[in-house]
Amino acid sequence: VSDTAENARPSDNVHVALGERSYTIRIVSRAASQFGSFARLSLDRSWAGRGCKRGLVVTDRNVRPIAESLAGSLAAVGISSDLAVLEPGEETKSLRSAQVLWDRLVDLRADRHTVIVAVGGGVVGDLAGFVAATYARGLPLLMAPTSLLAQVDSSVGGKVGINLPEVKNILGAFHQPSGVWIDTEMLETLPPRQFHCGLAEVVKYGVILDEPFFEELERAEPEILAMDPAWLRRIVARSCELKAFVVERDELETSGLRAALNFGHTIGHAIEAVAGYGGAYNHGEAVSIGMVAETRIAERLGWIDAGVRRRIELLLGRFGLPTAAPELESEPLLEAMTRDKKNRAGTIRFVLPRRLGHVELTDVVTPDLIRLVLDAQ
Amino acid sequence: VSDTAENARPSDNVHVALGERSYTIRIVSRAASQFGSFARLSLDRSWAGRGCKRGLVVTDRNVRPIAESLAGSLAAVGISSDLAVLEPGEETKSLRSAQVLWDRLVDLRADRHTVIVAVGGGVVGDLAGFVAATYARGLPLLMAPTSLLAQVDSSVGGKVGINLPEVKNILGAFHQPSGVWIDTEMLETLPPRQFHCGLAEVVKYGVILDEPFFEELERAEPEILAMDPAWLRRIVARSCELKAFVVERDELETSGLRAALNFGHTIGHAIEAVAGYGGAYNHGEAVSIGMVAETRIAERLGWIDAGVRRRIELLLGRFGLPTAAPELESEPLLEAMTRDKKNRAGTIRFVLPRRLGHVELTDVVTPDLIRLVLDAQ
Repeated sequence: VSDTAENARPSDNVHVALGERSYTIRIVSRAASQFGSFARLSLDRSWAGRGCKRGLVVTDRNVRPIAESLAGSLAAVGISSDLAVLEPGEETKSLRSAQVLWDRLVDLRADRHTVIVAVGGGVVGDLAGFVAATYARGLPLLMAPTSLLAQVDSSVGGKVGINLPEVKNILGAFHQPSGVWIDTEMLETLPPRQFHCGLAEVVKYGVILDEPFFEELERAEPEILAMDPAWLRRIVARSCELKAFVVERDELETSGLRAALNFGHTIGHAIEAVAGYGGAYNHGEAVSIGMVAETRIAERLGWIDAGVRRRIELLLGRFGLPTAAPELESEPLLEAMTRDKKNRAGTIRFVLPRRLGHVELTDVVTPDLIRLVLDAQ
Repeated sequence: VSDTAENARPSDNVHVALGERSYTIRIVSRAASQFGSFARLSLDRSWAGRGCKRGLVVTDRNVRPIAESLAGSLAAVGISSDLAVLEPGEETKSLRSAQVLWDRLVDLRADRHTVIVAVGGGVVGDLAGFVAATYARGLPLLMAPTSLLAQVDSSVGGKVGINLPEVKNILGAFHQPSGVWIDTEMLETLPPRQFHCGLAEVVKYGVILDEPFFEELERAEPEILAMDPAWLRRIVARSCELKAFVVERDELETSGLRAALNFGHTIGHAIEAVAGYGGAYNHGEAVSIGMVAETRIAERLGWIDAGVRRRIELLLGRFGLPTAAPELESEPLLEAMTRDKKNRAGTIRFVLPRRLGHVELTDVVTPDLIRLVLDAQ
């Protein structure tokens, strides 16, 4: 195979076109010292960011060194910052943590020209973004996602939020960042399981929107698993482009298009809820199992054939992801799906593939069919 | 004088044109039973509101009967609702109250098609609006402001928010309602002091944007103080129109135009902070004193003459509002102004009149000039 990352033409900049709220995602490898000039450029394009001189860098204990190096790069362009270091883990995405950060901003006498810089995975990005969205009716926000999952998913699209004890992501806002900085170097220190977790979402983009990209992932699997920098930039950039494509057309999740991103998530969220957050499966693993189960539903409906289903299952497996959770009972999973905030008025909605690269939103799936597929795992 | 409310042509509908977020303010007198059909119409214009069947009506103990009557009217058009009754007062605009309402929404299994209906003054509107803005990334919102202040100010423009212990309105968002329902009947049960408080903001609109309206207020003072329904509709509608004019051109407070609304508020907020919220002066009284002091600053700068200043002072006095707070020392007031979130980097910014109906934003005012004017009270 002659495919290399070079002729796959990795895009270093992904532009997210949202009118006045447009921004750039820059994807680099080992370039922390250039963060400052990217930050300056990104901030200067907006009213609140222009001339911004102060910031609060929010991070967690695991990636604190990365945050400190980015803060150093900010200082070099005249943005002085304080550092807020949180405990890693989903429990941090709480109202209590938000309160700590809000109080910190009050202490700093932050105003609408104080930038919030989120350096970390999805938890840090969602929480810091929510704090940025709500303090003084919106502070400028820069994201530096450090996990593959955050790089290809939560850093694009402006969804920010925190959990209440009973419900995940139930408090939130749409708050677009001024810029997103992705350095693939950050992935090198991740535990492999975290890296695989992000690959689940990468595979998802291929299935829902881009058959050639899916095929590219099939061919380049060894290079990707070896964390070749050029290939990492390629898969991150293509994933961001595909997510940006969707978000640009349905920023506020009102047209139904953005729902395509939920492929694998209807069952995936239920698995997380039933197995417990921070339990047997992390988000990407739950989504991987969810994608396989939902693909099986599509197969039962006659939407796709067994060959496509097998390719999806095979690729996820090669990427170190689980494809079934036979120990989970179907009844509690069904119950969790009914409780999900996306399932209006009792119907369970699914996004299912019609072919590779194309999905459709449907509510024809009956509880019996869901049970059948889950029980057959 | 031949002026009557009739030939002042009270506008019953004010359209706030904000693209997809446009909405109507309907101003009526004694028409609670028509609220349901207005709500239906307003909700049906938006994605989330269309087909909405459930709501949470948020109110306070003082206006509970009004909320119940509006809930009855909602039921008649097929929107069933629960009622959340809060304690009246500024302390209610807290994170703790927001938490109570968020938990309530979780209990109700609210989704993005559950409408929040705020029935009350500014505290209820700001709090319920903030909860609507943040729950599930935004619920549809209807406002039924019951105080004159809320009717002419906080119900227009989409600013919602709550206080932290140290800083007023510091957590918040821009979240436009689907519709605003203003019944002047609600004003009849207000304590006169509350009513006068709202008149301060009405006078403000005349000073900052509309000299003929200011003159209308001078002429119609007896009818307004007698709470003639047609005149009440007229002053509410014209105030809403003027605020809408500003908000339409500067929705997110980025161009500087929206700052015009802060006339009287730089010193007004400082008075509230120093005298204590819920203390000697309510918001409108503090703004009234602030407008007079800021007008005196404009006079000292040679922007306006003493005649204009005297007319503003006289009208506010006739409307039952204080025009000076000689017992407050200038130093703590100055300190409070420096702390205000709007005063970037230590400069105290003012919005000052150049003539009746026209104001300009300036930072030429020195602390010494502020001191001089405050000490001369």
